Amino acid sequence: MEDVRRIARDKLKGICGVYKDCDGDPRRLCQGQSYGRALGIGGIGSGASFNNNFIALRKHKLRMKLVEEDFIPNTVYDFFGKKLSMPIMAASVAGVNSFGGDSVISEYDFCSTVVQGCKAAGSIGWRGDTYTYSLDNSYGINAIADADGHGVKIVKPRDQETIIKFFKKAENVGCIAVGVDIDGCGSYAMATHNKPVFKKSTEDIKELISSTKLPFIIKGIMSVEDASKVVEAGASAIVISNHGGRVLDHTPGTADVLPQITKKFKGKVKIIVDGGIRTGYDVVKMLALGADSVLIGRDIIRAAVGAGTKGVKIHMEYMLQSLTKAMKMTSCKTIEDITPEVIC
Amino acid sequence: MEDVRRIARDKLKGICGVYKDCDGDPRRLCQGQSYGRALGIGGIGSGASFNNNFIALRKHKLRMKLVEEDFIPNTVYDFFGKKLSMPIMAASVAGVNSFGGDSVISEYDFCSTVVQGCKAAGSIGWRGDTYTYSLDNSYGINAIADADGHGVKIVKPRDQETIIKFFKKAENVGCIAVGVDIDGCGSYAMATHNKPVFKKSTEDIKELISSTKLPFIIKGIMSVEDASKVVEAGASAIVISNHGGRVLDHTPGTADVLPQITKKFKGKVKIIVDGGIRTGYDVVKMLALGADSVLIGRDIIRAAVGAGTKGVKIHMEYMLQSLTKAMKMTSCKTIEDITPEVIC
Amino acid sequence: MEDVRRIARDKLKGICGVYKDCDGDPRRLCQGQSYGRALGIGGIGSGASFNNNFIALRKHKLRMKLVEEDFIPNTVYDFFGKKLSMPIMAASVAGVNSFGGDSVISEYDFCSTVVQGCKAAGSIGWRGDTYTYSLDNSYGINAIADADGHGVKIVKPRDQETIIKFFKKAENVGCIAVGVDIDGCGSYAMATHNKPVFKKSTEDIKELISSTKLPFIIKGIMSVEDASKVVEAGASAIVISNHGGRVLDHTPGTADVLPQITKKFKGKVKIIVDGGIRTGYDVVKMLALGADSVLIGRDIIRAAVGAGTKGVKIHMEYMLQSLTKAMKMTSCKTIEDITPEVIC
Amino acid sequence: MEDVRRIARDKLKGICGVYKDCDGDPRRLCQGQSYGRALGIGGIGSGASFNNNFIALRKHKLRMKLVEEDFIPNTVYDFFGKKLSMPIMAASVAGVNSFGGDSVISEYDFCSTVVQGCKAAGSIGWRGDTYTYSLDNSYGINAIADADGHGVKIVKPRDQETIIKFFKKAENVGCIAVGVDIDGCGSYAMATHNKPVFKKSTEDIKELISSTKLPFIIKGIMSVEDASKVVEAGASAIVISNHGGRVLDHTPGTADVLPQITKKFKGKVKIIVDGGIRTGYDVVKMLALGADSVLIGRDIIRAAVGAGTKGVKIHMEYMLQSLTKAMKMTSCKTIEDITPEVIC
Repeated sequence: MEDVRRIARDKLKGICGVYKDCDGDPRRLCQGQSYGRALGIGGIGSGASFNNNFIALRKHKLRMKLVEEDFIPNTVYDFFGKKLSMPIMAASVAGVNSFGGDSVISEYDFCSTVVQGCKAAGSIGWRGDTYTYSLDNSYGINAIADADGHGVKIVKPRDQETIIKFFKKAENVGCIAVGVDIDGCGSYAMATHNKPVFKKSTEDIKELISSTKLPFIIKGIMSVEDASKVVEAGASAIVISNHGGRVLDHTPGTADVLPQITKKFKGKVKIIVDGGIRTGYDVVKMLALGADSVLIGRDIIRAAVGAGTKGVKIHMEYMLQSLTKAMKMTSCKTIEDITPEVIC
Repeated sequence: MEDVRRIARDKLKGICGVYKDCDGDPRRLCQGQSYGRALGIGGIGSGASFNNNFIALRKHKLRMKLVEEDFIPNTVYDFFGKKLSMPIMAASVAGVNSFGGDSVISEYDFCSTVVQGCKAAGSIGWRGDTYTYSLDNSYGINAIADADGHGVKIVKPRDQETIIKFFKKAENVGCIAVGVDIDGCGSYAMATHNKPVFKKSTEDIKELISSTKLPFIIKGIMSVEDASKVVEAGASAIVISNHGGRVLDHTPGTADVLPQITKKFKGKVKIIVDGGIRTGYDVVKMLALGADSVLIGRDIIRAAVGAGTKGVKIHMEYMLQSLTKAMKMTSCKTIEDITPEVIC
Repeated sequence: MEDVRRIARDKLKGICGVYKDCDGDPRRLCQGQSYGRALGIGGIGSGASFNNNFIALRKHKLRMKLVEEDFIPNTVYDFFGKKLSMPIMAASVAGVNSFGGDSVISEYDFCSTVVQGCKAAGSIGWRGDTYTYSLDNSYGINAIADADGHGVKIVKPRDQETIIKFFKKAENVGCIAVGVDIDGCGSYAMATHNKPVFKKSTEDIKELISSTKLPFIIKGIMSVEDASKVVEAGASAIVISNHGGRVLDHTPGTADVLPQITKKFKGKVKIIVDGGIRTGYDVVKMLALGADSVLIGRDIIRAAVGAGTKGVKIHMEYMLQSLTKAMKMTSCKTIEDITPEVIC
Repeated sequence: MEDVRRIARDKLKGICGVYKDCDGDPRRLCQGQSYGRALGIGGIGSGASFNNNFIALRKHKLRMKLVEEDFIPNTVYDFFGKKLSMPIMAASVAGVNSFGGDSVISEYDFCSTVVQGCKAAGSIGWRGDTYTYSLDNSYGINAIADADGHGVKIVKPRDQETIIKFFKKAENVGCIAVGVDIDGCGSYAMATHNKPVFKKSTEDIKELISSTKLPFIIKGIMSVEDASKVVEAGASAIVISNHGGRVLDHTPGTADVLPQITKKFKGKVKIIVDGGIRTGYDVVKMLALGADSVLIGRDIIRAAVGAGTKGVKIHMEYMLQSLTKAMKMTSCKTIEDITPEVIC
C-alpha cells in the first residue's frame, strides 16, 4: 500500500500531498486553493468543513475489550440484497480529471477502476456526476455497465426530467441503486456549464422515487429536518454527508450530525455516512454512532491514481482488514454488535 | 479575485501576508509588530483581540437544509432608507497610508476607492478618522462628497465641538449617517498629534445626537452596559466592535459578545457587528447571532490596494455571492430568515 | 543523562528523534510510519493512541504543599515480597532489534541491559515476547536467569500450552512473576510468523493461573469489564495499558481509563499502569489516580541504546530522583500518601 | 523599548529568544534545555509549569466599558507605607550571571539595575538569593543598600539561623520588607553547593516573623492549605507563585490558583501574584482575580540586559502606561475598581 501511495504522491504533485493524515488541516496544500472555483482535492473556501469531519471523528475513542473466547469477526453487510464483504463502499467522486487532467487518469478510467476494484474486494463503487457528464457521456454508468451493473449511480440535482433519464439508463445497465446528492444544488460549476442544479422538494423526491424500480438514495443530509422529509418521501437510504467539505464552508463534521439523525431514524431508513473516514477504526466509530454503513472518498482517488483497479482493491482490503481488527479488539462479532458502548 | 490578492500581496510585502486565512494567528507577520505604536494591519499588543474575533466565529457552524422548493435568496437590506444589495458594508478604516506610505495608496484614493467600489456593488463605504485628518483635510468626507453623499462618516471621540463640526460637514455633503467610534478614546496616535480623544458620557452622546439631523451611530460597543446607555441616549445604531482587535489587547471576540447584546436590544436599535468576517458564511453566522448587518475591514484594504475601485467592487460582489449561497444552502429566503436555528 | 540521550539520538537516527518531549505528536518522525506493519518506536496507524496517553496525563497538574516540617520521602514499594526502591519498573518491551537491527543492540543485550540496569537501581525489569522469541530462544528469560531471577516475564497470548511452558521456564529460573499481555491478540507479526495469538477467556486465565506458583499478571486492560473478569479469575495484578499506543489505533489515554478501574478494584488487585510516563511527576499523577505502581517503556529503550546497563540504571535513578522531589513538593511522605488530592 | 529588546536578543543568543510572546510554548529555545540542572530562562523539565501560567492568563478577557465621563486612572498602590506609582514590582530573580556569565551582566550590576530602575519608575525591585549568595556576598542587599534601602529582600529557605542573619542585614540597610520563597526547598543547586534548603513549618515561619521588625512575606504559595498556615502564622503578605515554572514541573498556572486563595484570604493578608504577567492588561486580569499587586520577572531580565537601569525604568513605565490604558478602557478609576466584573 505504501508503494501505491508513493506513486500517487508523485502523480498528484501540487494537488494532494498524500499525507499520512488526510485531516483537512488548514496548512495542507490542498486547502484554501480557491475562492469558490476549482477545488483540487481540498475543502471549499476556508476548508473548515473538511477539517471538521476529521475533528468530529477524532473526539471518539475505542474501548478495548479482550477477555473472552477468541473469534473471527463477521463483517458481512447486506446492501439491497447484495452480500458485501464489508459495510464500506466507495463514494461517488466525479471530475477527478478536472484537476489532474487526463494525463493523471481519464474520467472513464477512474470510474472503471473504482467500480472494478470495489467489486473485486466484495464492495460496491458508487459513481457520481459533474458538469462534464451528460446522458451521452455518462462515464459512471458506462463503467457500471462494464461491471455487469455492479454499482450505484448518483446524479446531481439537475432538472427532474434529466435525472429520470439518467435513472432509466442506470436501470437498463442493471445498477444496484440510484440516487441524488442534493448538496450539489449550490454548484457553480454545473450552473456555469449550462447544467443548472436545484433544491429538491419532498414532492420532487416522491416523483423521482416513483420513476424507478431501483432503491433510491438521497445523499447530502446534514439536518434532522431534511432527514425527516426524505424518509417521509419514501427514500430507501440516506447519506449523512457534507460532500467531503466541498459544497458549503463551515458545516459541522458528519460524526457530530450523525447521532442526531440515527436517534430518530435508525431502522426506518438505511443510514450511510461519509466524511473523514480513513480506516476500519473510523468505520467502527461511525457504526457505533448509528450508521449502517459508510463511504470513503479521497483515499479511493489516491488508490486509483496510484495503481488503478489493483490499487482500489488493495485499499478496500486494507479497510476490511483494519475493520476486522477493530471489531476483534472491541468485542464485536458482527457489525450489529457495534453499538454506542464500543466508543468512549 | 485571486489576481487582486496577488497584487496586494506584492504591494503589502512585510505589512500583510494576504494569507488564505486572515485569522490573527500569533505567527502571522502582521501580529505583534509593536508595543503599542504603529500597528501595520495586525492586532494591538499580543494580537489576542484580533485572533479572538476569528476563534469566536469559528465556533459556530452552518446547518444545511436542502429539501424544499428551489429559490433565489433575497439579500436586500434597508439601511436608513437606502435599499442595499446586501447587509454588508465597508468598515471605517483610516490611516492606510500610515503603514504603506502614499506609494501603496494615498489616503484620499483609498477613501474614494472604498466609497465608489461599495456604491457600485450596491453597498455603502463607511469612512473614518485618524490623526492625519482635520476639518480642513477630511479625506473621508471629500470622498463621500465625490460620491454624491453615498457614505457614512465616523469621527474619533475628539472634543464635542470638533465632532459637531465634522457632522455638519458630513450633513452638507449629503452623508447617509454619522457616528463616533468610542473605542478610539485610548489612541496614543491621536493624543501625540495634539488631537486628544475622550471617553463619552450618555450626556455627551445626547448632545451629539441633537446636533445633527442624520442618523447617529456609536461604534465600539463590547458590553451590555455600554449598549444600554447608548440606546437610552437615543442612538439609531450601534456597532459591536473591538476595532478589529486594534484598540485594546485581550478583548473577547465580537461573536461572543454579540448575542448578549442582541438578546436585550434586538429591534430597539439597529445592531451592526464587525470582527473577523471574511465571507458570506461568516455574515450568516453574525446575522444568526442577532446582528442586522455587518462591516468588513481588512479584506477591503487588500481589495483597494490590489485593484482600486474595481477591486473593492469585486470583493463586495464576492461577499454577496457567498452570502447568497450560504442562504440558499441553509434555507433562508430573506435576511430576516437568518435566525439562531441556522447555526449549530 | 544528556550524554546518554545524545548517543541514543545518533544510533536511532530515522527511528526515534529522542525529542525533549516524547509526546506522540503527529509530527514526530516515529509517528505514522506504516499502515499496520513495522512500527519503529511510534504508535500504530495514526499514532492517536500514543498521543492520547500524553494528552491524558498532561491534563492533570500537581498541587504544591510546602508549609510543614522538612522530610525525606520514603519511596519504597513492595512488589510481591521484593522491596523496591521505587514504584517504577521497566515495561516488557521486546523486538528492539526489529527496527534497528543488531547493529543498534542485539535482543539479548537489550534484555540483559534492562534487567541488570533495573536491578542495580533497586527496580525490576520486565521482559516480553515477540515473533522472534521461542521456548528455545527466550531472550528475556535468559536475561532474567543471568540476573538470578530478578525479573518479570510477560508472554504474548499464544496457545495455552506454549504459554504454560514459558511460565515453567520462568519459574525454573526464579522469576518474580509471570503474565500475559492480552492486547497482543491482534498482532499481525505473530500471526504471519506462525505463532498465532488469541483472545483469552476467563476460563483460559484461570487455567494459566493454576498452572504456576508465581504471581500472575494480566497486561492490556482498558475497560472495567475486562478488569472485572480478570479479577474474578484470580489474577494478582493488572496493568492498565494500551501497549504504548502500539496495538490498536484510537484508544483513549491510560490516565483517562485508570480512575474508572481504580474506583472499583483498588485494593482488590495490584493495579499497575503505563502510557506516556516520562518522569517522577507523571508517576505521582498516576499514583494519585489510584495506581499502585507504573511501568516505563520508550525511555528505557533510549537509555539502553545510549549507554547499556549503566544507561538504564542512570535513567531509573533519574525517575527516582524526580519522584522524590515531586513527593517532597506535594507533601507526600510515602507513596501511600499520594492520593487524589495531590493533583488538580 | 524595541531597541532594548533588540540588544537583549543579541546578548542572550541561545538563552532567550526575546520572542514577541514569552509564553513558555514547548517549542521555544529556552524550554526543556535540561533534566533538572541548569535552566537558562525557561521552565523546569517539560516547561509545562511556565506554559500553564501563560495559558491560565490567556483564558481571561477584558470587558471594554467606554460610555462615561472621561478620567485619568489613578494607579497608586500602597506597599507597607510606600506610595508606589503602580501595583507592579520586579520579582526576586537571582543568578542571572549563571547562564550568561559576567560578560552578559554581573550579578551585582543586575541587582543594582533592577533596584535603581524600579525606584526611578516609582516601583520597588525585589532581590533574591541563590547558591552564589552568602552573608558575605549578598549582591541583593548591597544593591538595596546603595538605593537607600528601597527594596525587598527574599531569602531561600535555608536553615533558620542563616535566614535570620540575612534579615538582620536587610534591616540594617533599611529594606522595606523581607521574606522567604518556600518553593526553593527543592533546589538541587543550593543542596549541591552546600547551602541546604528546607521545607518550613508554621512554627518556623512564626520564628522568622518574630525575628524581624520588617513586614514578612512568604513567596511560593500554590494551595489554600499553605495560604491558611502562613496567614495563621502571621505573615504580612503572600505571593502566589510557581517561581515562573522553575521549581516543580506540571504545576497549574497561578491565575488558576489565585481565585481559590483570594476568595478565602482577600483583605486578611496582602496577596501578590506572579507568573506570565507581561503587560498592564495581564495586571488588570490578576487584580480582577483578587490580587493586590503583581511581580514581573523575565521581562525585567531582558530589560536589564538590554539597557541596564534605563532599560528597567523604561520597561516599568511601559507596564504603567499599559495598565493605565487598560483601566481607562475597562472603566476603573482606581486599582480598587478592578473587580471580577472587569474580566469575562
